[in-house]
Amino acid sequence: MSDEQQIRDLIATWLRASAEGDINKILPLMAEDVVFLIPGQPPMRGRDAFAASFADWQGKFRLETNCVIQEIEVNGDLAYSWTKLSVTMTPLDGGPANRRSGYTLTVLRKNANGDWQIFRDANLLAEQLAP
Amino acid sequence: MSDEQQIRDLIATWLRASAEGDINKILPLMAEDVVFLIPGQPPMRGRDAFAASFADWQGKFRLETNCVIQEIEVNGDLAYSWTKLSVTMTPLDGGPANRRSGYTLTVLRKNANGDWQIFRDANLLAEQLAP
Repeated sequence: MSDEQQIRDLIATWLRASAEGDINKILPLMAEDVVFLIPGQPPMRGRDAFAASFADWQGKFRLETNCVIQEIEVNGDLAYSWTKLSVTMTPLDGGPANRRSGYTLTVLRKNANGDWQIFRDANLLAEQLAP
Repeated sequence: MSDEQQIRDLIATWLRASAEGDINKILPLMAEDVVFLIPGQPPMRGRDAFAASFADWQGKFRLETNCVIQEIEVNGDLAYSWTKLSVTMTPLDGGPANRRSGYTLTVLRKNANGDWQIFRDANLLAEQLAP
């Protein structure tokens, strides 16, 4: 399987496991020392911080995502991808859904086992729809 | 000069030329088919789009930037950098200054001449200060 296909599969697994709330499937898809960047927030560093953030909303919302991969480029053990993503989070207790959309830019690395992992991720989703 | 030092110099030149309003020094620092990602906006594609955007504000504001490089990693002809950036734009006609700060995640490529260029850039600056 090509590196690009492995990264496509990683993204698909990530989105499916997120909708299913399966943190144990998500965590191996990121490096231990991953960094997530979000506008107006300090960087979120490391798997543990991601897991804590995931636990905060998990079980309270239904998550639906639509992801269109714009580009994947691989050079040796380093790669990046760029996606257009929309995320709808619907409260299970019946409140109004929150819809965010926009782009992501992600740097991935191949680890010692030959598996691609998310390493640096910029999430530019905003409440207004990016055309 | 190492690849990392070349990328540090590129960032320094970019910031200095931006403050000086020197678009001719900035444009060679990005690939022709560069893409800039900003929250809530469509992607800005290509040098010409950047130059048009630059011309919109240039001559109307004084620009001050403070950039702290968090990380640069190079693999062959592909690299990424991640910075903490604050930007203050002060209207030359005396209005209140606009200050934005946050992080950037940038993918760079080495071109056929051996020069590093910005290729994909995510700008996560927000009006509130990211700690």
